[in-house]
Amino acid sequence: SVNPDLASERQTASFSVEKLTAWLDNGAEQTRLRRAVVEAIECDPVFSRENQYFQSQNERYEAAVRKAVHLQKKMHEMGWSEEGPEFKYIYRAVAGDVAFLLHRVFMRSVSMLGSDEQIAKWIPLASQYRLIGSYAQTELGHGTYLQGLETTAVFDVTTQEFILNTPQISAMKWWPGDMGRSATHTVVFAQLYVHGKCYGIHPFIVQIRSLQDHSLCPGIIAGDIGPKMNFEHIDNGYLMLQNVHVPRENMLNKFCEVQPDGTYVRRGSQKINYFTMTSVRISLISGEAVLPLMKACTIAIRYSAVRRQSKLKPGEQEAKILDYQTQQEKLLPQLAAAYAFHFIDDYLQELFDKGYREIQRKNFDTLPELHALSSGFKAMVTQYCTSGVEICLRACGGHGYSLLSGLPSLYTKIIASCIYEGENTILLLQTARFLIKCFMAASTGQPVPPSVTYLAAAKPRNCSAKNKLDFLHPDIYTEAYQHVAVRLISSTAAKLQDLIQSGVKKHDAWNQCTVQLAQAAKAHCHYITVKNFAETVEKIEPKAGIQKIMKHLCDLFALHGIFSNTGVFLHDGYISGAQMDMVTASYLDLLAIIRKDAVPLVDAFDFTDKSLNSALGSYDGQVYQRLYEWAQKSPTNKQISPAYGKYLKPLLHNRLSKL
Amino acid sequence: SVNPDLASERQTASFSVEKLTAWLDNGAEQTRLRRAVVEAIECDPVFSRENQYFQSQNERYEAAVRKAVHLQKKMHEMGWSEEGPEFKYIYRAVAGDVAFLLHRVFMRSVSMLGSDEQIAKWIPLASQYRLIGSYAQTELGHGTYLQGLETTAVFDVTTQEFILNTPQISAMKWWPGDMGRSATHTVVFAQLYVHGKCYGIHPFIVQIRSLQDHSLCPGIIAGDIGPKMNFEHIDNGYLMLQNVHVPRENMLNKFCEVQPDGTYVRRGSQKINYFTMTSVRISLISGEAVLPLMKACTIAIRYSAVRRQSKLKPGEQEAKILDYQTQQEKLLPQLAAAYAFHFIDDYLQELFDKGYREIQRKNFDTLPELHALSSGFKAMVTQYCTSGVEICLRACGGHGYSLLSGLPSLYTKIIASCIYEGENTILLLQTARFLIKCFMAASTGQPVPPSVTYLAAAKPRNCSAKNKLDFLHPDIYTEAYQHVAVRLISSTAAKLQDLIQSGVKKHDAWNQCTVQLAQAAKAHCHYITVKNFAETVEKIEPKAGIQKIMKHLCDLFALHGIFSNTGVFLHDGYISGAQMDMVTASYLDLLAIIRKDAVPLVDAFDFTDKSLNSALGSYDGQVYQRLYEWAQKSPTNKQISPAYGKYLKPLLHNRLSKL
Repeated sequence: SVNPDLASERQTASFSVEKLTAWLDNGAEQTRLRRAVVEAIECDPVFSRENQYFQSQNERYEAAVRKAVHLQKKMHEMGWSEEGPEFKYIYRAVAGDVAFLLHRVFMRSVSMLGSDEQIAKWIPLASQYRLIGSYAQTELGHGTYLQGLETTAVFDVTTQEFILNTPQISAMKWWPGDMGRSATHTVVFAQLYVHGKCYGIHPFIVQIRSLQDHSLCPGIIAGDIGPKMNFEHIDNGYLMLQNVHVPRENMLNKFCEVQPDGTYVRRGSQKINYFTMTSVRISLISGEAVLPLMKACTIAIRYSAVRRQSKLKPGEQEAKILDYQTQQEKLLPQLAAAYAFHFIDDYLQELFDKGYREIQRKNFDTLPELHALSSGFKAMVTQYCTSGVEICLRACGGHGYSLLSGLPSLYTKIIASCIYEGENTILLLQTARFLIKCFMAASTGQPVPPSVTYLAAAKPRNCSAKNKLDFLHPDIYTEAYQHVAVRLISSTAAKLQDLIQSGVKKHDAWNQCTVQLAQAAKAHCHYITVKNFAETVEKIEPKAGIQKIMKHLCDLFALHGIFSNTGVFLHDGYISGAQMDMVTASYLDLLAIIRKDAVPLVDAFDFTDKSLNSALGSYDGQVYQRLYEWAQKSPTNKQISPAYGKYLKPLLHNRLSKL
Repeated sequence: SVNPDLASERQTASFSVEKLTAWLDNGAEQTRLRRAVVEAIECDPVFSRENQYFQSQNERYEAAVRKAVHLQKKMHEMGWSEEGPEFKYIYRAVAGDVAFLLHRVFMRSVSMLGSDEQIAKWIPLASQYRLIGSYAQTELGHGTYLQGLETTAVFDVTTQEFILNTPQISAMKWWPGDMGRSATHTVVFAQLYVHGKCYGIHPFIVQIRSLQDHSLCPGIIAGDIGPKMNFEHIDNGYLMLQNVHVPRENMLNKFCEVQPDGTYVRRGSQKINYFTMTSVRISLISGEAVLPLMKACTIAIRYSAVRRQSKLKPGEQEAKILDYQTQQEKLLPQLAAAYAFHFIDDYLQELFDKGYREIQRKNFDTLPELHALSSGFKAMVTQYCTSGVEICLRACGGHGYSLLSGLPSLYTKIIASCIYEGENTILLLQTARFLIKCFMAASTGQPVPPSVTYLAAAKPRNCSAKNKLDFLHPDIYTEAYQHVAVRLISSTAAKLQDLIQSGVKKHDAWNQCTVQLAQAAKAHCHYITVKNFAETVEKIEPKAGIQKIMKHLCDLFALHGIFSNTGVFLHDGYISGAQMDMVTASYLDLLAIIRKDAVPLVDAFDFTDKSLNSALGSYDGQVYQRLYEWAQKSPTNKQISPAYGKYLKPLLHNRLSKL
C-alpha cells in the first residue's frame, strides 16, 4: 500500500504523468518498448541487484561477468540486437552493472581502425566471446595527453614482428576496464618505431592471456588495479609488456601500415578519430549523467514527501520536509536541471546525427563545432549532475548516507564522469579555445558556426525587466545569459591580447587566462542550455498541462542559474541590484509553485523500484519498513562477529548476565 | 629516495617548515609530544591501517574492536590518560579508526546527567569495559527534532519500574554507534509518562545484551543497520523495545526524578545540556573537518608536484600539473582554507573555555552567542572542508578515484560531518535566528554580544580600493566582508518584517526567508573567519618568514571568497565591476606566489605517511611505484575468480592457447 503522504501528492498533479512520460520518451510506442525491455530484464533473477550493497569487489566482479554472458544469451532469445531500438533500454535496465563494456570498445576500435581483413578475422571471434577484448590507452603516468604515452612498439624487419615494451613504470597501462582479470586480448596504443624513427601513437592487437587456461602470455604482467570509489564490478587493470612480439598484421592498419621492408605508409584521413571522441562524449551524457541525476531526484523528492520533521506551524503535525523552503531550494533546481539536460541531450544528438551525415559525404566542416560542443557539454553536464546528486544525497540527512538509500552509489559513480573521457577542466579549455577563435573571427566579420553566431550580434546594454514577473519571460533571461557569455568571452579574449601585446609569450598568456577561459566556456554552455530549454517549451503543444509545468521548470532552471551566479550578471550592471531582488523573488515564488507537482514530475521519469534500488525512493513510499527489512539482510547481521569471542568476551564475561 | 620533482619544491621554501609546524602546534614542546604519541601508535602493528582499503565491513568492525581494546591497554602501559595532554594526539594517530566512540558518549552522558550514586555505579564498570555502552537518541523517523521522539517510558508504581516501548516502526532507535553488535547497555531517550501524563524526553539506562553470552535481553530487538558510505568500522545499530522493564533507579536523575509514588520532581538547570551540544560541535571541527582537509591538500599538492601532464611551453618537458593556473586555482584556496579554519578553531576553543569558566560560576550569559557561533561554524566549516576534499580528489584525476589515493575515504567520511551533530541547514538557521535577534536589538540601541557588535557600527558605503594592490590590505577586504554580512542580515530582517506587516503569519514569513537567512548566517561566519585570520597574521612575530607566507594565505582566503561570491559584493555597488577586476587580478597573482611554497606549506602539517595512508601523498613522492605495489596486494589479485571457471572458460576454451 502506498504511504498516504505520497498518495496525496499524486492526486493533485496539474498534468498527466503518463502523457509526460510518453513525451519524454518521444512517443507512447517507445515507452511501451522501454517498459517491455526493462520488464524482461528485471524479471530475470540473474540480473537482480538485490544484494549489490552487501557484496565485495570480488563478488561484484563475478556477478558482472555472469550478467554479461547471460545478457548475450538473453538478447539472442529475445531477438534484440545491438543495433536494434531496444539496445539503449537494455543498458538502462541493467543499470551499467555488467562486465565487458571495454570489450565493446575493443570491437569498435577494430571496426573503425582495422582493415577489412582485420575486421573479418577479429570481429566474429569477439562478437561470439571467443576472445575477450580490452582497450589499453591510458598509462600510469599519462592520461589525457596522448602524445606523451611511453609504451613502445619497435618493428623488427627480420622477424616481421613488432616488439612491445613498457620502458619504465610510469608507462604501464593502467585503468583499462575488463583487463585486470578477464581480457584475453587488448588493443595497445604505443609509439611506433621503424628503423629507429618514431612515427607516433599507433594501435596494436596484443594477446595477453591464454585461451586454454587463461594464464598470462609470455612477457605479460597484468592484474587488477584494486579498489576504487565505485565500479567494483569492473576489473580495471594494469599491463606491463616485456619484449612482447606481435605479428605485423596486428597493427590496426586502415589508416596507416608498415610494409614488410619497414616502409611506413599513411592513408586516408585520421580526422575520424577525433569524431569518435565526440561521439563517446555525447553518448555518455544521457546514461552516465542525466539518468543518475533523475534517479537521485526521484529518491530525494519522494523521501522528502514522506519524511516529516519539526513543525512548520505551531500546534500542527510535523511537516513534510518538502514543505520547507530550504529543502525546495535544494531539490527543485536539480529536478529542473535534469529536465534541462534531457533536452540538451536531444539537441546534441540531433546536431551529431547531422554532422555524421555530412562526414559520410566527406564534409568535415562541422567537426570543430561538434568537438567544442561535445567537450563543453560533457564537462558542464557531468559537473552539474554530480553536484546535483550530492545535493540530493545530503538533503536526505542520515538515511541518505546509508548505502541502502541508493544515493551513495549514484554519487560515487557519477563523480567518475567528471574525470573519464577527458578531464572536465581540460575539456572546458578546448571549448574555450574554439570560442576565442570564433569570437576573433566574428569581430572581424568572418563567418562562424551556427551555435556561436550570437557572438557577433549587437547586444542591449541593460536588462529591460521592470518587475519580478518580467523575469518569467524567456526572452529576458535568455538575453541575460547571452550577454554574460559574450562578456566573459570577449573580456578574456581582450586580456589574452593585452598580455601578448605587453610581451608575455603566447603559451604563458594562455595559462594566465585559463581560470577565466574555463568560466567563459561554462557560461556559453549554460546559455545554450537555457535557450534550448526555452525553445523546447515553445514547441510543446499545450496539451495535458505539460507545457505549463515545463515552462515553470524552464523558468526555475534559468532563474536558479542567475540566483547562484549573481556576480556575472551584476558585474557590468546588465542586471542591477534592484532587478536582482526581483530575480530572487520570482525564483523563490517558483519553488512554491513547482513543489506542488514535484512528486508527479519525478514519477514521470518512470523508474521501476528495482532500477532505483533504494529503500528511500520506492513508488509506495514505505521507507522505514524497507530500511528495516533491508538492513536485516546485511552480512553484518548474518554472523556473530569473531570480535566477540576474541576481544569482548574476555572483558565482559560475568557470572551474572544482567547488571 | 625522494622523487627529484618533489625534492626541488622543498629547496626553495621561503620559510622554515619545522618552525611553522611548531607554531601551528602552539610550541615545539607540543610537536615533540605529538610525534612521540604518533610514533608509539604507528609502530604498533595492531594499529596498522595497511589493509584498510581491502577490508569488508565485517573485517573493519573486527579490527576496530581489537584496536579499541588494545588502545585501552596501550594507554595504561604508556601512562596516557583521557585527561592528559596526549589524548588529542591519540585520536589523530588512530585516524578515528577505532570502536567504542559512543561508549565514551555513554560515559559522558551518565557523568553529566546522572546522580552521584548513578555515577558511582556505572562509571567504574564502563571505564574498565565491564560493560559497553551506547547512546540511543535518534530514531528511524526522528533526527534533529528531539521533541518528536516516539519511544515511550511508562512508570509503573506497583513494580517501581519503567516500561519502555517502541510504539511503531518509525520509533525504532536507528544509527547509534556501537549498538549494532557491541553494546551491552545504552542510554535510551524516551517520552516519560507517569499516571498518564507526559513529561517529555528523559534518559534511561537500558541493558540490551547479556553479559554472559552477549545474547539479546528479553524484549530487545537489535542489530546492525547495514552498509554506509563510510564508517564501516562502526556498528551503527537499530533497537526496538518491547515492554522492556528497567528499575526506577535507571532514569538518569541529576536534573529530575520520579519518586516512588510517581511524583515528578525537576531540579537544577537544564541549560547545561545545551552546552554539551555546543561543546561537541566545536570539538569536531578540528578532527573531523580541518584535519581531513589538511590531509587531502597534502596528498593533492604533493601529487601535483610530481605528476606531469601535457606541455606548458612548446619544446619543453611535460609540465608539473601544479604549474597550471587552473590546478592552482583548485588546490591553493583549499590550502588557505585549511589554515583559516585551523585558526578559527583556536578562536572558538578560546571562546568556549571562557564561556565554560563563566558557566562554572553559574553565569549563563554567553550561552546564546556560543550556541550560535558553534552551530554556524560547525555548518560552515564542515561544508567548506567537504567541498574542499572533493576538489582535491577530483584534481588528482583518475588516480584520485582509486581508494589507494586515500582521497575517496576522506571524502566519504567528511561528508557525514555535514549531517551529524545537527544537519547543516538547520544549524545555519539557528545562527540566523540569533543574528536577526541581535540585529533588532542593536538597531534599537540595546547591548549585543561581542561577536555581533559590528551589526550596530556605522558602515562606509563603498569600498575605497583604488588598485589591485589595495585589495591586499586586510582592512579593505575585512570591511567588505563585514559590509556584506550586515547587508544580508539587515535586508533579510527587513523582508521578514515586511511579510509580517503585510499579514503573513510569523512562522510562514520565517519559512519564506529561510534561503536568505541561511545565506546571511554563512556570510557572518565567513566574515569572522577572515577577520580572525587577519588578526592572527598581525600577531605573528616576523620570524623565519612565517608571517609573510601566512599573510599571503590570508589574502588568498579572503580574495578567493570574494572571487567565488562576487554577486553579494557587487549587489549594492559596495564593490564596483572595475574593482572586482582588481580583486580577480590580485587573486590570480597570489596563486602564482603561493604556488612556490605549496609543498612546504603542506609539509608543515606534519602528517606521517602512515597517517595519510595514500599512494599519491607520501613524503617521497614515489607515486607510481607505490600505486603498483599496493595494487598487487588487492584481494582481486589474490585469487583466481570463480567467474573464470563458471562463465568464461566455457566460452573461451580453445585447443590453441594463442590466436
